[in-house]
Amino acid sequence: MSLVEAYAAMKPKEPLRRFQFKNRETGNKDVQIEIMYSGICHSDIHMAREEWGPGMFPLVPGHEIAGKVTKVGAGVTRFKVGDHVGVGCMVDSCRNCNSCKKGIEQYCDNGATFTYGSKRRGTDEPTYGGYSTQIVADEDFVLKIPANLPLDKAAPLLCAGITTYSPLRQWNVKHGDRVAVVGLGGLGHMAVKIAVAMGAEVTVISRSEKKKADSIRLGARHYINTSEPEAFTKNANQFDFILNTVSAELDLSPFLNLLKLDATMVQVGVPDRPNTVSMISLIGRRRRLGGSLIGGIQETQEMLDFCGKHHISSDIELIPAEKINEAYERVVKGDVKFRFVIDIQSLK
Amino acid sequence: MSLVEAYAAMKPKEPLRRFQFKNRETGNKDVQIEIMYSGICHSDIHMAREEWGPGMFPLVPGHEIAGKVTKVGAGVTRFKVGDHVGVGCMVDSCRNCNSCKKGIEQYCDNGATFTYGSKRRGTDEPTYGGYSTQIVADEDFVLKIPANLPLDKAAPLLCAGITTYSPLRQWNVKHGDRVAVVGLGGLGHMAVKIAVAMGAEVTVISRSEKKKADSIRLGARHYINTSEPEAFTKNANQFDFILNTVSAELDLSPFLNLLKLDATMVQVGVPDRPNTVSMISLIGRRRRLGGSLIGGIQETQEMLDFCGKHHISSDIELIPAEKINEAYERVVKGDVKFRFVIDIQSLK
Repeated sequence: MSLVEAYAAMKPKEPLRRFQFKNRETGNKDVQIEIMYSGICHSDIHMAREEWGPGMFPLVPGHEIAGKVTKVGAGVTRFKVGDHVGVGCMVDSCRNCNSCKKGIEQYCDNGATFTYGSKRRGTDEPTYGGYSTQIVADEDFVLKIPANLPLDKAAPLLCAGITTYSPLRQWNVKHGDRVAVVGLGGLGHMAVKIAVAMGAEVTVISRSEKKKADSIRLGARHYINTSEPEAFTKNANQFDFILNTVSAELDLSPFLNLLKLDATMVQVGVPDRPNTVSMISLIGRRRRLGGSLIGGIQETQEMLDFCGKHHISSDIELIPAEKINEAYERVVKGDVKFRFVIDIQSLK
Repeated sequence: MSLVEAYAAMKPKEPLRRFQFKNRETGNKDVQIEIMYSGICHSDIHMAREEWGPGMFPLVPGHEIAGKVTKVGAGVTRFKVGDHVGVGCMVDSCRNCNSCKKGIEQYCDNGATFTYGSKRRGTDEPTYGGYSTQIVADEDFVLKIPANLPLDKAAPLLCAGITTYSPLRQWNVKHGDRVAVVGLGGLGHMAVKIAVAMGAEVTVISRSEKKKADSIRLGARHYINTSEPEAFTKNANQFDFILNTVSAELDLSPFLNLLKLDATMVQVGVPDRPNTVSMISLIGRRRRLGGSLIGGIQETQEMLDFCGKHHISSDIELIPAEKINEAYERVVKGDVKFRFVIDIQSLK
């Protein structure tokens, strides 16, 4: 077994600190990966602080993992040593339920095994995530990262990328559609890039003027500052699709009113408390509100290939592991353009 | 011009009383209808009490109208004297917008003309509804009532029937689907009958045991009493479609959790204030929440034909016009099985 250097929350709400664990042997179908970069997702903070309910500690967060293959099991067919690979939010699922059979393992009827904070299937062993030097994962849950994407900027595609790509695809966003993205953070900035590459005419919706220049730079054609009077009324009934990446509690009604007849807003940000929704905003124009959770493995590979083709990656701030706790504070304040990525070299 | 006997709210929140108005002449494309029966919809009460914003008074409510043709204009092609006909929530629309061209006049981009409380298009004349002895309407907004349906019990189909039929059709409810209907009132009892006739396996969801016997009598196979412990948890992930007919403010999250992956709950009841919705209940199983408003004219005719074929009509309590105010109080308390219908003979 290899000894792995990591950063962990030893208890809920404590600052993360250095930690070591032993990884499992590389099994027949396993891929051993030297982690090079690991993105910091807001979920990591929620989990480390037990804001979404009880967790398993020590907790090694990180599900935006990019690295290189260092070893493969004898039964591995899709990867070889040296390949650029990624691991996202899941490392296993039951593989037998309807969801798994459809390739939407994130909705596994028996519960997917998440990259960190889960138990390995059929064991009591915890899964440890990407704030570490190595991960061993079944090849079915390992993704190929296209050669033209820099690994540091590609890491956030494994969660922020697929979380926004999946609903844009599932709701069939197409060339010429008017798409709005609510919030320009880690998720929102990926949504803009991907929707633009899909040919949509993209609008960013934010509550101040602050994100306007970045929105336009990222490819958005329009910008709505919701603090302006009449921002909502003068843009009513305009959009074919809205992606809401904001995880704060909001009254969703004014946003829903921006949708055309029969159009949908999909929520991907996860607020701690319920949102409010006026039923009139749905009924009056037969609108729909949906939710979407990351994406399946096959769709994640499709997203990575799409990003390779369109030269899309994340805007990042690269930090050493010692700055994780500081980065957490800045993420909570929304002070990052647009994703922190840990340079795992700093752990070695 | 004919002098029409009616019941009207002369001012907001006042009891309704006798009122007379002059109807317009029967124009080239008009159908003059002797009203026989008129249903009492909860919307009538909201409108008469200005609970949905400022109205036009005197207000003659009623948009569940059944009667017989007494005269037709020279240009009328679809109706003749003596036909059994109905008028629902709309009597006109712009006819030129995308919605009108698609036959979904209820979403007319320029605003449909409602059967009462609207202005006739291009005029300042108010529209008066079905609590009256006669209506004159353009034939394009007049519906044929199948000969096998009794007119009194058919009247509520014009609003309660189409309001529930339309979402069941639009969301493609089919044979064998597991469908839940939340609330067993005027809308809910029609939803049960129609969904059963579509071949669905129907469950009624209500907050006490009171509606159970009626639910089963109307064709429901199952009943969920939400005041029972674990009512929500033990029925999670069961339904292909849920129709929420309740117009009280609710936390919709536990109801959404009853849906299968990718399934939809549609709201047709109109609460005065926003509902709360946990985004997790949507995101966790990619569920959807929608809204639906009555139905288009073509779809209303399709619904009436469907009801004729399946011998479906409303369960009603027939009352004389003098009892309208009393009936309003009982509707507000939910004390009606399941729709009051005014015998317009009592006005003559």
